[in-house]
Amino acid sequence: MFPKNAWYVACTPQEIDDKPLGRRICNEQIVFYRGPDGVVAALEDFCPHRGAPLSLGRVVEGKLVCGYHGLEMGCDGRTIAMPGQRVRGFPCIRSYPVVERHGFVWVWAGDAAQADPARIHPLPWADNPEWAYGGGLYHIQCDYRLMIDNLMDLTHETYVHSTSIGQKEIDEALPATRTEGEEVITSRFMENIMAPPFWKMALRGNHLPDDQPVDRWQICRFTPPSHVMIEVGVALAGRGGYDADPKDKASSIVVDFITPETETSIWYFWGMARSFNPKDKALTASIREGQGKIFGEDLEMLERQQRNLLAWPERSLLKLNIDAGGVQARKVLERLIAAERGADVKAAA
Amino acid sequence: MFPKNAWYVACTPQEIDDKPLGRRICNEQIVFYRGPDGVVAALEDFCPHRGAPLSLGRVVEGKLVCGYHGLEMGCDGRTIAMPGQRVRGFPCIRSYPVVERHGFVWVWAGDAAQADPARIHPLPWADNPEWAYGGGLYHIQCDYRLMIDNLMDLTHETYVHSTSIGQKEIDEALPATRTEGEEVITSRFMENIMAPPFWKMALRGNHLPDDQPVDRWQICRFTPPSHVMIEVGVALAGRGGYDADPKDKASSIVVDFITPETETSIWYFWGMARSFNPKDKALTASIREGQGKIFGEDLEMLERQQRNLLAWPERSLLKLNIDAGGVQARKVLERLIAAERGADVKAAA
Amino acid sequence: MFPKNAWYVACTPQEIDDKPLGRRICNEQIVFYRGPDGVVAALEDFCPHRGAPLSLGRVVEGKLVCGYHGLEMGCDGRTIAMPGQRVRGFPCIRSYPVVERHGFVWVWAGDAAQADPARIHPLPWADNPEWAYGGGLYHIQCDYRLMIDNLMDLTHETYVHSTSIGQKEIDEALPATRTEGEEVITSRFMENIMAPPFWKMALRGNHLPDDQPVDRWQICRFTPPSHVMIEVGVALAGRGGYDADPKDKASSIVVDFITPETETSIWYFWGMARSFNPKDKALTASIREGQGKIFGEDLEMLERQQRNLLAWPERSLLKLNIDAGGVQARKVLERLIAAERGADVKAAA
Repeated sequence: MFPKNAWYVACTPQEIDDKPLGRRICNEQIVFYRGPDGVVAALEDFCPHRGAPLSLGRVVEGKLVCGYHGLEMGCDGRTIAMPGQRVRGFPCIRSYPVVERHGFVWVWAGDAAQADPARIHPLPWADNPEWAYGGGLYHIQCDYRLMIDNLMDLTHETYVHSTSIGQKEIDEALPATRTEGEEVITSRFMENIMAPPFWKMALRGNHLPDDQPVDRWQICRFTPPSHVMIEVGVALAGRGGYDADPKDKASSIVVDFITPETETSIWYFWGMARSFNPKDKALTASIREGQGKIFGEDLEMLERQQRNLLAWPERSLLKLNIDAGGVQARKVLERLIAAERGADVKAAA
Repeated sequence: MFPKNAWYVACTPQEIDDKPLGRRICNEQIVFYRGPDGVVAALEDFCPHRGAPLSLGRVVEGKLVCGYHGLEMGCDGRTIAMPGQRVRGFPCIRSYPVVERHGFVWVWAGDAAQADPARIHPLPWADNPEWAYGGGLYHIQCDYRLMIDNLMDLTHETYVHSTSIGQKEIDEALPATRTEGEEVITSRFMENIMAPPFWKMALRGNHLPDDQPVDRWQICRFTPPSHVMIEVGVALAGRGGYDADPKDKASSIVVDFITPETETSIWYFWGMARSFNPKDKALTASIREGQGKIFGEDLEMLERQQRNLLAWPERSLLKLNIDAGGVQARKVLERLIAAERGADVKAAA
Repeated sequence: MFPKNAWYVACTPQEIDDKPLGRRICNEQIVFYRGPDGVVAALEDFCPHRGAPLSLGRVVEGKLVCGYHGLEMGCDGRTIAMPGQRVRGFPCIRSYPVVERHGFVWVWAGDAAQADPARIHPLPWADNPEWAYGGGLYHIQCDYRLMIDNLMDLTHETYVHSTSIGQKEIDEALPATRTEGEEVITSRFMENIMAPPFWKMALRGNHLPDDQPVDRWQICRFTPPSHVMIEVGVALAGRGGYDADPKDKASSIVVDFITPETETSIWYFWGMARSFNPKDKALTASIREGQGKIFGEDLEMLERQQRNLLAWPERSLLKLNIDAGGVQARKVLERLIAAERGADVKAAA
């Protein structure tokens, strides 16, 4: 139950720098690689000769060469050549629209005719030298919507991440949630509180004192199919909070791309973009390490929650005020999936 | 195929001393923890908010706090509180009758209305300072009845445990088996034999010579749902055997609680209670280690036997005289399960 | 989809020298052991008493003694004895025709009445002191026919084994394939080429120069059910190639016995027989190590190909000229399987 007519993050550029990468995305088994001129390509991971996975092959002068018998595949899914063979009649394999942009490789898992690169999620900070980014990838056995729920309800920080970004004041500040078109925004503001450990580190990273009260904010933005960008930060108390001068605050954007592998597993690309001290690579590494540890704390919870939901399929979950972000995101997704299916029915009629 | 209206051993008290324990018992996914005043509680391992397993949470002042979003659960399955929420309308989760007694935590997996703690298996030695106890827990992939068979037919000792408690004289002494109500007793007596290695160790532990002939006995008592207590021992030959004076024998009770996890897996609580040298902790540890090693020898046999029975489901097994203990135990179980189902049908009519 | 009325390699003699061996062959769960006078025996791995696997037992004076309760099984599937029991009425278990020959243990997985040892694959070199043999066993998750395809189309050497036996000249020399009765032969000859690394080692092993052009050959012979013998070698160029004098060449026979475990897994017995320097045990070890490494390179490809074929069951594969060996072998197999089934239907009518 995920939209297929959408751009998903498939991998990072580094993952295909040295060799092809086989990865299942939205139930499609795909091989990603760099074709002619290093341009990224995506094909079914299936050699038309004998069904070997092309991802076990290698790239030679932009051609994907099958590692079993040397069939040379083009990035359009047509066989280019094979030693000793006439290949004109070989069956084609499916190629997928794929674009390298903003430091990620994006794939369109559905109807290629509708794949418009203009619809790839904008990341204004990605190519901006005033910003720095660090992140990673987790493979998690859960429905992608459980991760959207997780990120659109940050009250879990108090419990799952109690030693880093959690604090009881999160529970005390109710979030406000609204839907604007296909976007869902849920925000929480906390004033005059002490920063938790992760944010103390960030304050020090921006040469600010870590022992004074701060104002803290969390603004989560869901956009389809499953991107969640979260503006987070702390400012010295009374300096304007979210709108404070950059020199009085430490703020960043938590970047979450959640790519379904199957109905109950995901590729979770997480990271953090920041505009303070962007040249400080040690700080980038330190934030990345801290975030990796924090986000790793969600894994067991999400996988065990998934197993519980599979064991009790008839139970409906509560939809409290804190759950509004996830609930509204699911409504947006349901509309998109229904529209996609309606279009399929119409096309078939 | 196991009775659900029965007290099963769920865990040892130590397993829930520091944090909640999630464990599947008779196909029920249950969280065990210490509620108000340290009294043990058992609930469905499912948070009514979003389905997270409560066993990933923690206990705060007797309340089980969900580790995902802080819902506070009471030991009756009703939500007590949740930050920022009115919880009165929250759905309840199932609570299970549970009692801590005789050094074990006992759970009733079926109809709570019928759960009478007076029916918990008596362990007269458990709180008696003249006795010592040591034991452990194995998780085994087999039907609980295969373990009952195993324990009610000790001829397997000669083959599975040939270096510790096995000896050829076991094969030569036919057991006698009888059913008394719901109890099945199978006994074997061997006279004027040399003790095998484990019993030589026990004789020395009771300051008796280990190089003289002994009389040996094994009296296995099955009681539903799946408890097997085995009186075992050796006495210097000719001093009265089972009835010999304590100073002339080394005897003990093998304690087996077999708790079904699923139809084909069990939690096997094994141990040994003895009345000789009860203060000698080194002896307790030594016996426990020896018994753990011996009982570990059964695991592969039972798991491979289970796989064979699943692969050849149409084959019926032999029921020899040595199998009478297991066969009669299964008859008792069949009666109980049929009565349970009949009562269900009657209640539904 | 494999013939059952056929002799398959079940194991090597060493695998049953010390204790019984349980192994699934053509979906039959079988125990192999040495019965009276050390003669190999094969039975269903199921004790008629309580279903324990007999392979967990031990052999005592040629009798297979169950490791659970001591039942003594004869090599005809009839119980010989059991302590304290009359065994005449015990149900028999199935015994399988089994023969030790040519350094292997061969089992007939189908109708015993048709098992004629004269039909065991001849291995003329096996008991010939002028020859040496070394080999090994891999367990692979793939249909046995994928391995036949692999061995009957050696163009894959160029891609899968590029650092040992592969070379581009293989692609340039088309193979010729023919079926003779139940045998399929596919041959390739390459003239005046440089030997790849593995064959340079073999040339040196036969005291020949490794820096001169050679003629190379590959003659693959498939015989049912799934044996592939491959004559391979190199001769100093212009000395007659395949027919060159033994002192001018290094040649050997690649030995492949592919035994189905299930529809999608195999026991793959691989090895190499050679007639040059047969007494040189270090050379045998060195060849065995090299071959083991080379053949290990196929495993991931075959297992991933199998998974692809299961994921895309509706796709038909290409049948190119290079695939003719595998394609013709499958036709032979289809005829045999159809004949086997026809005979079954006739027998049932």
